Amino acid sequence: MNAKQAAAEKAAEHIESGMTVGLGTGTTAYYAIHRIAARVQEGLDIRAVASSKQSEELAKQLGIPIVPFAAIDGIDVTIDGADEVDQARNLIKGGGGALLREKILAANSTAFIVIVDESKLVRKLGAFALPVEIVPFACELTTKQVRALGCEPALRAVDGRPFVTDNGNFIVDCDFGVIDDAAELGCKLHRIPGVVEHGLFVGMTKTVIVGSADGSVRYL
Amino acid sequence: MNAKQAAAEKAAEHIESGMTVGLGTGTTAYYAIHRIAARVQEGLDIRAVASSKQSEELAKQLGIPIVPFAAIDGIDVTIDGADEVDQARNLIKGGGGALLREKILAANSTAFIVIVDESKLVRKLGAFALPVEIVPFACELTTKQVRALGCEPALRAVDGRPFVTDNGNFIVDCDFGVIDDAAELGCKLHRIPGVVEHGLFVGMTKTVIVGSADGSVRYL
Repeated sequence: MNAKQAAAEKAAEHIESGMTVGLGTGTTAYYAIHRIAARVQEGLDIRAVASSKQSEELAKQLGIPIVPFAAIDGIDVTIDGADEVDQARNLIKGGGGALLREKILAANSTAFIVIVDESKLVRKLGAFALPVEIVPFACELTTKQVRALGCEPALRAVDGRPFVTDNGNFIVDCDFGVIDDAAELGCKLHRIPGVVEHGLFVGMTKTVIVGSADGSVRYL
Repeated sequence: MNAKQAAAEKAAEHIESGMTVGLGTGTTAYYAIHRIAARVQEGLDIRAVASSKQSEELAKQLGIPIVPFAAIDGIDVTIDGADEVDQARNLIKGGGGALLREKILAANSTAFIVIVDESKLVRKLGAFALPVEIVPFACELTTKQVRALGCEPALRAVDGRPFVTDNGNFIVDCDFGVIDDAAELGCKLHRIPGVVEHGLFVGMTKTVIVGSADGSVRYL
């Protein structure tokens, strides 16, 4: 069992019958979806919502009941990965491009469980370029305003065209260097019209499960 | 000449040859576009960007040169209407549904000129329900979080279906009653994942031109 899988399986133990579960996106989250699906096969009675079209498709294929958001009042537990985690459990997410939907799920969850391997732990955030989701309209001007906050933004591209999120927006990956005050930077980014969301998750989780290569796990 | 037209014509006087001009949306802005077009016919040499597909189409039909955002570094003057203006020149905008693009233009303009008739002036903002643009994904959860800030949100609909903005999002019209601290409310709204933008324009304009029914105008 690898480190990500070990963390994912530990996280899945937090789910109980009767819960509404939020499914994250990315390799670590996919391990969790597989483990949750196995538990559903064993009789676990849950309903789920997903943070991306890929996760929703995977969950459906594996037999996890997916419900529309109109059918739920909130989410009991969301399990998702992260690109960086600092010692205060603040995160950078968005490497997979699903940060907006992931943040909506996290913000509406009673518990938001983050699963990572040791390589994602940092003293301070910022080695991973911060993904920022922006509207395509006038993206040149919005990118200019993001740059003025002190970073080098790069429009994410696939095959020479801008990467488009599930919400029809673009992503700029912003190298700010070490981020000393993630909360303040998040506020400044939100104030820029055209910025839809950013990948800083500040104070959103109390539970980070870290998997190691030997298959052991610990809570950060 | 009616009040809106009088204000719009006064605003158009602020435009000079060589400028990049931002075009607003709505009835008052359309008077301004007509007046700017007349000046272009007379030899005014400008280029323009528009805050909505409707304004862009109108401008093109009238012969105003529209350029892509990639071709400009910023905007010299944007002229737009508003739904409410308070005594500190803070605004509520978004009745026409173009608030995000209007705010992007305003935020990137050296001068943002707002044109209204007397009926839009208020002591404190809030008689007009605040438009908030949200992503369609999980809009039920996002609306619930907006409601928790102390308003009654109503999903804007046309012919029984959600109104869709130029950016592919929904609008919730939020009756907060009198808004005592527009800046603070704006920050709280931005912190909700799924909120793309809101119609509070705080500290974004120094120039409000008010037209009266007798055709006279004054600066607020």
